Amino acid sequence: MNDLCRYIDHTLLKPDAVTIDIERICMEAMRHKFKSVCVNSVWAGYAGNLLQHTDVELCCVVGFPFGASAGSVKAFEASYCVIMGATEIDMVMDIGAALEGRWDDVVLDIKNVVRAVKDKAKVKVIIETGLLNNEQKRTACKCVMDAGAHFVKTSTGFIKGGATAEDIELIKSVVGTELGIKASGGIRTRKDALTMISMGATRIGTSSAMSIIL
Amino acid sequence: MNDLCRYIDHTLLKPDAVTIDIERICMEAMRHKFKSVCVNSVWAGYAGNLLQHTDVELCCVVGFPFGASAGSVKAFEASYCVIMGATEIDMVMDIGAALEGRWDDVVLDIKNVVRAVKDKAKVKVIIETGLLNNEQKRTACKCVMDAGAHFVKTSTGFIKGGATAEDIELIKSVVGTELGIKASGGIRTRKDALTMISMGATRIGTSSAMSIIL
Repeated sequence: MNDLCRYIDHTLLKPDAVTIDIERICMEAMRHKFKSVCVNSVWAGYAGNLLQHTDVELCCVVGFPFGASAGSVKAFEASYCVIMGATEIDMVMDIGAALEGRWDDVVLDIKNVVRAVKDKAKVKVIIETGLLNNEQKRTACKCVMDAGAHFVKTSTGFIKGGATAEDIELIKSVVGTELGIKASGGIRTRKDALTMISMGATRIGTSSAMSIIL
Repeated sequence: MNDLCRYIDHTLLKPDAVTIDIERICMEAMRHKFKSVCVNSVWAGYAGNLLQHTDVELCCVVGFPFGASAGSVKAFEASYCVIMGATEIDMVMDIGAALEGRWDDVVLDIKNVVRAVKDKAKVKVIIETGLLNNEQKRTACKCVMDAGAHFVKTSTGFIKGGATAEDIELIKSVVGTELGIKASGGIRTRKDALTMISMGATRIGTSSAMSIIL
């Protein structure tokens, strides 16, 4: 179970989160040695403060959840989060560009963020599998590799669909061991989490971490 | 009907919008003399180009839809959009701060954006009425006034609820004629639009503009 905790990004991204919610997830993450706490950038400073000098990473989302903020805005947001202590950045891909096959734009958008955080943070790229067909998912994974990011992440959990065993298998078939794979969206039980890991996920994003581990 | 068109922000904010969608709404807006086209910041450059030297304003959303990006990120995004030609900025309020009564933070977050765009754009503040009780709605309206923004806007349309006649009346009772009022979220028919205007709305945000006017 300790091992499972180290896979988990303890996540709270809904827009009506308040201070005590963020404090609670930080405390839970420290207690159970979750890999990270994952929050919106408005909470980066507060959570960063609570988590400094602990083993829990600060993970912040960027361009969340639509991925439709301009590239320079995503890069700025990522830089801001790193300054506040983030060591992991979960950015949403430029979904419109992907859907119409502007893959060079998809790569550039990711590169902007990777460069903005230099070596100070790992970058996970949410490709929002629920909006893509299988060919688009494969190409998106290649773009994440080409751009120098560190993880492919399946879903925001707020748009359409979530992590599926089939998608983790598909992503694994493209990225192999070169990138991490974060399964996210709709993961609510221990069985869900273990299934994703068995298929190749190296990280689990969930807002149900406490019910998964207890 | 021409008058109604001048109330309308012709809106396309879903994350899977592609270039031809944005081109179409810009063309429709020019043809029907809508007040503005309202898009995510990733489209600011493209739409700004199409709309320059026309009577249609470029309206861009900031911190959309969660309002949970950091204040400096919202300010940066707003500046970026203005550089791309935006003359209207629809920002989402810091909802978490409002819900826990940190109203000074709500005001500061808005002021940051107002200052960032100086006199180059009107700022509308989405208070997301669906998440607030009536007292919170009233206080939020006062914050929008205190911060020097130009409009109270009801809803993102992506989180909870949308514009209601009761909320427009409530907002009007607080802001009077000092601020504009933008009704948005779930406005799909001419009757909806006219009801909102009769209650005091001075702007209508809708992704159903063509069916409303035709």
